[in-house]
Amino acid sequence: MSVTDKFIQQIDANKAGLIKRLADAVAIPSVSGDARYRQDVFRMADWLVKELEALGAKTELKPLGKQKLDGKEIDLPPVIFADYGTDPKKKTILVYGHFDVQPALKSDGWNTEPFELVHDEKTDRLYGRGSTDDKGPVLGWINVIEAHKQAGIELPVNLKFCLEGMEESGSEGLDDLIVAEKDKFFAGVDAACISDNYWLGTKKPCLTHGLRGISYFKLSISGPGSDLHSGIFGGIVHEPMTDLFHIMSSLVTPQGEILVPGIKELVDPLTDEERKRYEVMEFGVKDMNEATGSATTISDEKEGILMARMRYPSLSLHGVEGAFYEAGTKTVIPAKVIGKFSVRLVPSMTPDKVAELVIKHVQSEFKKLGSKNTMNIELANAGKPWLADPNHWNYAAAIKATEKVYGVKPDLTREGGSIPVALSFSEVLGKNLLLLPLGRADDGAHSTNEKLDLSNYVEGTKLLGVYLHEIAATA
Amino acid sequence: MSVTDKFIQQIDANKAGLIKRLADAVAIPSVSGDARYRQDVFRMADWLVKELEALGAKTELKPLGKQKLDGKEIDLPPVIFADYGTDPKKKTILVYGHFDVQPALKSDGWNTEPFELVHDEKTDRLYGRGSTDDKGPVLGWINVIEAHKQAGIELPVNLKFCLEGMEESGSEGLDDLIVAEKDKFFAGVDAACISDNYWLGTKKPCLTHGLRGISYFKLSISGPGSDLHSGIFGGIVHEPMTDLFHIMSSLVTPQGEILVPGIKELVDPLTDEERKRYEVMEFGVKDMNEATGSATTISDEKEGILMARMRYPSLSLHGVEGAFYEAGTKTVIPAKVIGKFSVRLVPSMTPDKVAELVIKHVQSEFKKLGSKNTMNIELANAGKPWLADPNHWNYAAAIKATEKVYGVKPDLTREGGSIPVALSFSEVLGKNLLLLPLGRADDGAHSTNEKLDLSNYVEGTKLLGVYLHEIAATA
Repeated sequence: MSVTDKFIQQIDANKAGLIKRLADAVAIPSVSGDARYRQDVFRMADWLVKELEALGAKTELKPLGKQKLDGKEIDLPPVIFADYGTDPKKKTILVYGHFDVQPALKSDGWNTEPFELVHDEKTDRLYGRGSTDDKGPVLGWINVIEAHKQAGIELPVNLKFCLEGMEESGSEGLDDLIVAEKDKFFAGVDAACISDNYWLGTKKPCLTHGLRGISYFKLSISGPGSDLHSGIFGGIVHEPMTDLFHIMSSLVTPQGEILVPGIKELVDPLTDEERKRYEVMEFGVKDMNEATGSATTISDEKEGILMARMRYPSLSLHGVEGAFYEAGTKTVIPAKVIGKFSVRLVPSMTPDKVAELVIKHVQSEFKKLGSKNTMNIELANAGKPWLADPNHWNYAAAIKATEKVYGVKPDLTREGGSIPVALSFSEVLGKNLLLLPLGRADDGAHSTNEKLDLSNYVEGTKLLGVYLHEIAATA
Repeated sequence: MSVTDKFIQQIDANKAGLIKRLADAVAIPSVSGDARYRQDVFRMADWLVKELEALGAKTELKPLGKQKLDGKEIDLPPVIFADYGTDPKKKTILVYGHFDVQPALKSDGWNTEPFELVHDEKTDRLYGRGSTDDKGPVLGWINVIEAHKQAGIELPVNLKFCLEGMEESGSEGLDDLIVAEKDKFFAGVDAACISDNYWLGTKKPCLTHGLRGISYFKLSISGPGSDLHSGIFGGIVHEPMTDLFHIMSSLVTPQGEILVPGIKELVDPLTDEERKRYEVMEFGVKDMNEATGSATTISDEKEGILMARMRYPSLSLHGVEGAFYEAGTKTVIPAKVIGKFSVRLVPSMTPDKVAELVIKHVQSEFKKLGSKNTMNIELANAGKPWLADPNHWNYAAAIKATEKVYGVKPDLTREGGSIPVALSFSEVLGKNLLLLPLGRADDGAHSTNEKLDLSNYVEGTKLLGVYLHEIAATA
């Protein structure tokens, strides 16, 4: 029997232990966004340190200073650094995860107590806050180490853990720590793996190698000194709302085509290799309609929908600050309105170049209006897109591991949103990063009745272990 | 000495009495929009009844039933009906006014106690809530009757008073009362006069013979079942916001030109007689810039500005319900958004015809978008424009009276907003209605430091009295 088969056998033999470990973790309500739970986030860090130390890892708690939350200054949860193995002949893999969770109350609409792991035997699902985001995946790594020890197999790589307790609250302090520790704790890392996203659907595993960036704009138009009555002033003055609507409707068509000149030209062309990835992905129009609760996709083709999310930019109008927003009717001419919109970025768009093009376009459109109002456009925040090379040995190992554990080639996906920490690790460390999800698209990460299918937890744990063996074998 | 000169002399002799009467009225905080002041509104009605009865008027309090306010059911203030004179040989003039006021607290930014009339001797202004809106004008009529009694002159017309205590809170119950009393209390009315608006500027008196109407629309676009994340879904679905902005920007240009086909054709053509009225009006671009606190007029010509307010329709975009409206940034694709906009109507536009044209245009624009979202457009509320014949004897009398008291021909203005009660009286009674303002444009009717210039109060009282004599002389 091969060592990986022995490892897999050991995992199957210890399912009850795996569930018990997740139940213990879910029972600690480590909500980072609510000061009342801050001690629980610290408790969760201590619990993980104990688990890691018990298996022989060397750990260190890195303090991040203080933050203001709910009106008081409190300590930020520490980041856990841990080393498991330092053999210079082995590759060193950095693992990131987080041990804080979103808030949850039974009264939000949960069917079970959110901080009590409930194993529904009928569906074989494990319900509980943090089950899939991100306690299950983090414990997956610990399960892997434990199973190796139990089966008497040597771990084929060195592992470095970076586990944070503020991911659900903006990862405060983490970026600075990554930069500061680049040549210290993070020295010698060969590649990185994050398990904190989800399968594209509910049936087929995937590896994720790209994320879109974002440029978020605030476009303000101001005219009168204060809000005016439309009876008295309607027709007399240039109305800021009219100007704003004309400019914002010049940004994007109802078919999602971005009208800002020069943007489309920044998008990397589609290669044959890439096109094939969309063709084999297990996801259809029906899945998307289920996800949006509607039948409003712009494209009627699977590939069109997938590429719109993964490899093309988009421009969304989010809202207007300063206008009438309540129910009912109000006859106001708002004096100053701020339109909010953002562009999702893909390679090779950069926030700088996009800001330059958007600002130029908006200025030109405003000029065309012939308005006496005052216009201002600013880039409120931005993040670059991220794209990793899926032909790297880090991905090759994960593909082989997926085939071994699940019997299928994983979809090679990209995601439409941003995961800032992925960009930080890639940029600061300059190493290949793999996003290796354990859970499914319907896990309900931030909502009520969050769950992780038992099979995703168990097979996912196997996947993480086999992935490490494939690295050692092929890299 | 003519009777009108005797009347004018009597008013000048009793300035102190006039101020005292206004001070007594302002001291009663008859705020109709706040349940805690409801007893004061009743007290104000009783005070007026006592004043009127003391002068020999026959009064009646008409109850209007109950209303819900601030969570409890309370009695509506009564409408005061009063008859002063029933001589069948005289004309009968209906006078409308209101004795309730807007809320006011010193802490809102008043320089003086709002419910204490303060006579600033330097500027000769009378500060206090209700001084100009509408207690001063209502007391003007009482001053007229009193001066006639004091001077031993017979009032040349019969007066009918209809005074309400809910004008600042939607005139609840009044319309039904007007209809119900059409052939009872209101029988025999020859013409009506309301003194509840303002001069166009601060120097020249005016008579107002028109008001714009309004058609207020709610345009809703719905797509996804719930709000979506723009990272995950941006570019994939038809976004309701994009559809909404495209349609709303197709309604009006930044120069205020209404783009809904057929609307412009409904507007009555400008006559030479009417054009001359704008040419003589005392109001310039500078006055408008002061009023808006900006230099954003679409037209740079006085006549263009005045006609935009008084005789042309306008279309204003008020806001969006359901979108992101707070400060900051949020990457939401709103699932359902409701755009609010309204059209100000002038003769011969009707709410029915305007709704038909707007709905047709919006449907056609939505169809052009090729969107899979769902659109709905509804007329939320509407009011007809009002226009009286300024060549009627009612106006002729007021013009002569203005010339006599102020030594100038008044501007014959129209206003951009709506005064629903003006429309109700005109439509139900079918008699000519005159809006005869006492106060100036800068009185600050609904804001802090509301005032009435002493000269406007005193000369305005003279104006009301002389107007009645001119009716008797010329009609």
